[in-house]
Amino acid sequence: MIEPRHREALETLLGPKAVLSDPSDMQSYATGARYDRGQAALVLRPASVADLSAAVAYCVQNGLALVPQSGNTGLVSGSTPDQSGAQLVVSLDRLTETFELDLDNRSLKLSAGLRLSDINRRLEPHGLFFPIDLGADPCIGGMVATNTGGSRFLRYGDVRSNVLGLTVVLADEAGTVLELGGSLRKNNTGVDFKQIFIGTSGAFGIVAECTINLERLPAQTATAYLVPASGAHVMPLLRAMEERLGSYLSAFEGMSRNAVAATFSHVPSLRNPFQNGNIPDYVILAEVSRSWQPREGEQSLDAVLESVLAEVFETDDAPLADAFVGPAAEMWSLRHALSEGVKHSGRLIAFDLSFRRGDIMAFCDHMKAEMPAQFPGVTICDFGHIGDGGVHFNLVIDPDGPDAKDVAFEGQLRDYVFKVAVERFGGSFSAEHGIGRKNQTYYDHYTPTRIREMASGLKAITSPGPLGAMRF
Amino acid sequence: MIEPRHREALETLLGPKAVLSDPSDMQSYATGARYDRGQAALVLRPASVADLSAAVAYCVQNGLALVPQSGNTGLVSGSTPDQSGAQLVVSLDRLTETFELDLDNRSLKLSAGLRLSDINRRLEPHGLFFPIDLGADPCIGGMVATNTGGSRFLRYGDVRSNVLGLTVVLADEAGTVLELGGSLRKNNTGVDFKQIFIGTSGAFGIVAECTINLERLPAQTATAYLVPASGAHVMPLLRAMEERLGSYLSAFEGMSRNAVAATFSHVPSLRNPFQNGNIPDYVILAEVSRSWQPREGEQSLDAVLESVLAEVFETDDAPLADAFVGPAAEMWSLRHALSEGVKHSGRLIAFDLSFRRGDIMAFCDHMKAEMPAQFPGVTICDFGHIGDGGVHFNLVIDPDGPDAKDVAFEGQLRDYVFKVAVERFGGSFSAEHGIGRKNQTYYDHYTPTRIREMASGLKAITSPGPLGAMRF
Repeated sequence: MIEPRHREALETLLGPKAVLSDPSDMQSYATGARYDRGQAALVLRPASVADLSAAVAYCVQNGLALVPQSGNTGLVSGSTPDQSGAQLVVSLDRLTETFELDLDNRSLKLSAGLRLSDINRRLEPHGLFFPIDLGADPCIGGMVATNTGGSRFLRYGDVRSNVLGLTVVLADEAGTVLELGGSLRKNNTGVDFKQIFIGTSGAFGIVAECTINLERLPAQTATAYLVPASGAHVMPLLRAMEERLGSYLSAFEGMSRNAVAATFSHVPSLRNPFQNGNIPDYVILAEVSRSWQPREGEQSLDAVLESVLAEVFETDDAPLADAFVGPAAEMWSLRHALSEGVKHSGRLIAFDLSFRRGDIMAFCDHMKAEMPAQFPGVTICDFGHIGDGGVHFNLVIDPDGPDAKDVAFEGQLRDYVFKVAVERFGGSFSAEHGIGRKNQTYYDHYTPTRIREMASGLKAITSPGPLGAMRF
Repeated sequence: MIEPRHREALETLLGPKAVLSDPSDMQSYATGARYDRGQAALVLRPASVADLSAAVAYCVQNGLALVPQSGNTGLVSGSTPDQSGAQLVVSLDRLTETFELDLDNRSLKLSAGLRLSDINRRLEPHGLFFPIDLGADPCIGGMVATNTGGSRFLRYGDVRSNVLGLTVVLADEAGTVLELGGSLRKNNTGVDFKQIFIGTSGAFGIVAECTINLERLPAQTATAYLVPASGAHVMPLLRAMEERLGSYLSAFEGMSRNAVAATFSHVPSLRNPFQNGNIPDYVILAEVSRSWQPREGEQSLDAVLESVLAEVFETDDAPLADAFVGPAAEMWSLRHALSEGVKHSGRLIAFDLSFRRGDIMAFCDHMKAEMPAQFPGVTICDFGHIGDGGVHFNLVIDPDGPDAKDVAFEGQLRDYVFKVAVERFGGSFSAEHGIGRKNQTYYDHYTPTRIREMASGLKAITSPGPLGAMRF
């Protein structure tokens, strides 16, 4: 699909082991984490910012389309090539050299190809971590390009609020390298251009290095499962907890009975902690954390959480039906197993939605009332980040039903769910997964014309060359 | 300076009381909070987003230059007109209608013309506040346009990290109104365009309304003055405090002896809390805060802070020479009086710098060593936000000295300080005051060509009309 002269030129430029052309070598780079198998013309694996810049410059000069790929853990086909076989993947997996820890500044400058788990493993001896908590294990470059949020957004915010600086390579004829922001926390000297590279799937430039804010590892955490008195009591419960704990509430995660049940049946190693194994309609995992070591005469955080829960039980129209404090590791293991769990209970159609917090349960109730009639054989297995408005609205199709293999059915389902989420409830059709081929048509449909024009204009003045899986 | 037909047309459009043309009425709008007295052609005071849009459209269609003005508390001449008399001020001071509190979402949608103090007064009954702590009392529109940081950045971040959505009016022929972001916390569906209107002095569009994140008011705070063993011990001290308190540390503010002394002598109401009134070379105001009410068997936050300080005293090469916990109101009153204090001790040339945290004291030491020889008669009265790298580097010129009234001298001083701060220490020449006529030349000088080209391109695709005091 690609002229041999280009492969040879790129091999000369980057060295032979930085260019993959054998289909079997390229397959994993062309296959998405959840969806899609594409076709790569070549896979480029530059090992330095200079090589990345040179590779991009060559491709732009020769009109070759590039798709940047970091950890390739994304779920919207934003980091893999299409079926055409004309797109080159530029992988960041060899861009791992820079790891400059600044303990005074509590920041880290690092290469885009480093994995989240590896970063936190290297930070732990210093009592520090990068506070984005995810089920997957992406690389930092892709985390910036999708602006991941995760389970502790409530306390630490998203990637955007933890990025101090970026080094990006633009898709222009020079492969321009831009240094944006450095390591400064306060800097208001014009347009903060690093913002346009965050959450835009690499279409405006490739993140090569970044400088991130680090947080102290909590010295103490306490977790509890909360059973709300009803769906309508979830918000009063969240507010009651925030009134008493403020930002020391570090997680407030919702799990529906269907999601929990599917997970228990497919991950047998998990213990069912509920009385007689009866899973409530809805369960909330609440976490409180404190940065200092418990001191003499000071209550444990478990005790603080217990007394907060006791107070909440005593309020009028108590939003709590049941609650128990338990070991963090075990309680989180259920939460983190949910995506795995629901995947095994049938054909999964996943939605990454967000709403104003007060609309989350209203949306879910609406869908539970409306969907069965219109979409029989579809089970709703929702869970999500109630504290920040995010909902992983998962639909599981009966594997033996008539719709199990119907491709058009998935499209109908997506059109319907997004229509209700966006048009009726003012929600987002991509809360933390970004935009890729998988949801491109919804970007085209729901983005106001003026915004799309501004995005195209912005693309023209930053990276005019063909870059990224999505089209602005 | 302006053709009568334009005044008449704008009066017809907005109503006579929304258009000021009498010089005495316009004077306060044309005068900066600290520097400059300009000349306004007219002052427009639209009372609704629709009127603002209509006014902007008319001005763009007729090539009239607009300078948006919010609370006009800025310090870089970003919200006042120049001397030409050709620029119109568009004031947001009548844009105060919207105040939509969403308790479930812990967010507030409000008009750009509302004052910070008013916002927090109205939020207090709900136990909430907008966590940007400033000496001045700006309006929210200007806070967004300058991305203010303040004294609790360490804990809550800047305005950027607390803005959920914006309504902006673009300077195009239609006066296009853009709604960006709504009230969602997680939303990654393309370019987050609201970011380009934050911290850019209104040059890309006028912020008419915004939706902001709110935080719970702390239930308990404890404050202490810390005297570091030496300048070199300030960073070890900050790290020792963060190691023990993490993000419970809500402020870590530095005050030099010169700044404190100037403040005591000019604000006699302040009590000097130091032993025998001897002001240390450098003092740090540390604040710890906790969101929950103290519970039975729980230590007060004062006790926690005391025990942390005791631990720090006991470390090897202890970074602390002295420390005492005291009443928050009194300790903050000194900190908040500093800018007033230094202003009265001579001719003030103020700098709003930032650095990587580890470079702050190095920069100040460098200047204390170098400046006396080159700039005799100049006293350094620095203070700032050590926790986030911000330094209010204030220079006071002896009022009776030869340089007191020399205008060129101020320019030489600015060139020198910025050269050392930016070129030698990699700092920022505008940490939290943004860009205006006062520092335009330094924007022109220190901004890379490619970034300036991108900024001009961005201006062309958003607000091509003449808007704002600064030039991108």
